[in-house]
Amino acid sequence: MSVTAIGSIGLDTLIVPTGKFEDVLGGSLSHFVTSCSRFGVPVAMVGVVGEDFPKEHMDYYSSMNADTQGIKVQDGKTFRWTGQYVEEQMDEAITLNTQLNVFETFDPILEGASQNPNILFLGNIHPCLQSRVASKASAKLTILDTMNLWINTSKEDLLGVLKQIDVLIFNETEARILTGEDNLVVAGKKVRELGPDIVIIKRGEHGAMLISSEDVFQVPGFPVAEVIDPTGAGDSFAGGFVGHLAKTNDFSKDSLRKAVVYGNIMGSFNVQGIAVDKISKTSWDQVEDRYQEFLEMVKF
Amino acid sequence: MSVTAIGSIGLDTLIVPTGKFEDVLGGSLSHFVTSCSRFGVPVAMVGVVGEDFPKEHMDYYSSMNADTQGIKVQDGKTFRWTGQYVEEQMDEAITLNTQLNVFETFDPILEGASQNPNILFLGNIHPCLQSRVASKASAKLTILDTMNLWINTSKEDLLGVLKQIDVLIFNETEARILTGEDNLVVAGKKVRELGPDIVIIKRGEHGAMLISSEDVFQVPGFPVAEVIDPTGAGDSFAGGFVGHLAKTNDFSKDSLRKAVVYGNIMGSFNVQGIAVDKISKTSWDQVEDRYQEFLEMVKF
Repeated sequence: MSVTAIGSIGLDTLIVPTGKFEDVLGGSLSHFVTSCSRFGVPVAMVGVVGEDFPKEHMDYYSSMNADTQGIKVQDGKTFRWTGQYVEEQMDEAITLNTQLNVFETFDPILEGASQNPNILFLGNIHPCLQSRVASKASAKLTILDTMNLWINTSKEDLLGVLKQIDVLIFNETEARILTGEDNLVVAGKKVRELGPDIVIIKRGEHGAMLISSEDVFQVPGFPVAEVIDPTGAGDSFAGGFVGHLAKTNDFSKDSLRKAVVYGNIMGSFNVQGIAVDKISKTSWDQVEDRYQEFLEMVKF
Repeated sequence: MSVTAIGSIGLDTLIVPTGKFEDVLGGSLSHFVTSCSRFGVPVAMVGVVGEDFPKEHMDYYSSMNADTQGIKVQDGKTFRWTGQYVEEQMDEAITLNTQLNVFETFDPILEGASQNPNILFLGNIHPCLQSRVASKASAKLTILDTMNLWINTSKEDLLGVLKQIDVLIFNETEARILTGEDNLVVAGKKVRELGPDIVIIKRGEHGAMLISSEDVFQVPGFPVAEVIDPTGAGDSFAGGFVGHLAKTNDFSKDSLRKAVVYGNIMGSFNVQGIAVDKISKTSWDQVEDRYQEFLEMVKF
C-alpha cells in the first residue's frame, strides 16, 4: 500500500539530561518516515528544506526507503528548532528557539502518484495547508495530526479540515482543550461529531485510546526504563500506526487496535535515543519482540 | 477464605460539584468492606468509633456481611473528615477539616479468629500500628496500604513494616516519593527490595501496575463518564483486589492479574456515587458485566 506524508523537516538542537546535540535531523516527517520504514512501508515525502540541508540527511531518507522527490529544496535556510527537556519533566519540551526559515512559506503540493495514495498522512502543520492538500488528494484513509497551537489560534481552520479526514491523532491535553471535556471517552465522541470517524488520543507514558463508531479501545504505555529524548514520539506513534495499516492493508476494528499498539511500541523506542537514532537502528524483529513482550504484560 | 481488615471508620462531609453531603459513612474500612462484600467475602473489621456513631452504619456493615465484633466503641466522638473536590481536579481532595477524635488513640487489637485470617489487610493508618498488628497476626497474605503522609513523616516506621508484608498497595506519586525514581517499573522493583514481594501501583484514571518477582503487569483505567466522588476509590480498589483473591483462594500470577483488574473495576464504580452509595448498590452481575466490558475494551 502506498503512503504519502506531509510534514516538517528540520534541524533540531536538543538539550537533554545526557547532553546537547546540535543540528540533528528533526521534524515530524523525519520521525514518521523512520518509524514507518520499520514496517517495510515506503513513504512518499512532501516537505521543504533549505539549501543548507545536508545531503547525508537526504541519503538517510533514501536508506529508509522513502521517496524524496516531493521534498522541495528552496532558497534559504532549513527549519530549525531548539528544545530542552529537564529531568522529572521529560514529557514536556521547553522551546528555546524556533526559526521557521523556508518552512514559513511551505506550500505542500502533491504530484504524480503521491496524489492518490492508499493512506495520506497530514503531519502537524497549519490546518489551512492540511485542508488544501486533503481536498486535492484522493486517499482511502486520510490521517491528521495536530497540536494545541492550532486549536488555540486557528480553530475555524482546524474544524474545517476535521470534516475532510478519517482519522485524527492528537494528545489528551489537546482533546480536552478542543472539546472542553475532561473525560476522554466523552471528548473522543464529541470530536467524532466534528468529522473524523476514528479518534486516537495519545497519552504519553499512559498509552493511547481509540474511539470510533464501532469501538472504544484503551492501551497502557510500554514502560521505558530511561527516557533519553522524547522529541518525535508522537510522530513515531503515527508512523507505527500507519506502518501497520499499510503493511496489512487491513482497516478492520482488530487491525486498527493492533495499529494503535504498534504506534505505542514505536513511540517507546523513539524516546530511548536522540532524534531518530534509536528507531533507525531498531530491527523488525526487535519491534515484534517488544510487541510480544507488551502483549504478555497486559493480558489477563 | 477469611479476611481481617484494619483501618479507619469515619463520618465524612463531602463537598463535590453536585452538592454537599454531611456526615456520610467514610473511612478506609467502610469502602474496603463494601467493595469486598460484592465478592461474597465477609470481612472481620478492626476499627474504632465514638459513642456518636449511628447504629444504622453498624447495621450497614452487617448488611455487607462484615463481622463488626472488632469495632471498638470508645468514649468520645467518631473520626471526622471534611473534604472538597473541584471540577477538572476531581482526582485531588482538598482537606478542609480533620478531627481525629477517638481515632487518635486507636490501638488495633486482633482477637479470636481474626488473628489468623487467610488475608490480612492493613488499611492506611500509622505504620507503627500496622507493624504491631502484622507481628501479632498470622496470615497467608498480608497486604498493606499506605500514603505519602507516612512516607514523609514516618519513613523509618514504614520501612520497618514493609519487611513484614507480602503486598504493598500505593499510588504512583507515593511510589516516586518513596524511591526517588520517576520510572514506575524501576520504582516498583526498588520497593520490592525493601520487603514486599508484590508491589501494586495505583494510577487513578490511568489504571494500575503490578510488579512481582515473576511479573510486570499493566492495565489502563476503566473510563468513567462522570466522576461524582472519588473518596475511597483506593480502598475500593483494595477491596476488589482482596475480594477476588479471597473468593478464588488463588494467589497465582494469573489470579493476581485478575485481582488488579477487579480492583480497577471496583475503583471505577466507587467514583460514580457519593461515599459508599454506588458500590453498595452494585450487584455481582454488574461487576462481572463491567469486567467483561473492560476485557473487550483492552484486548488486541
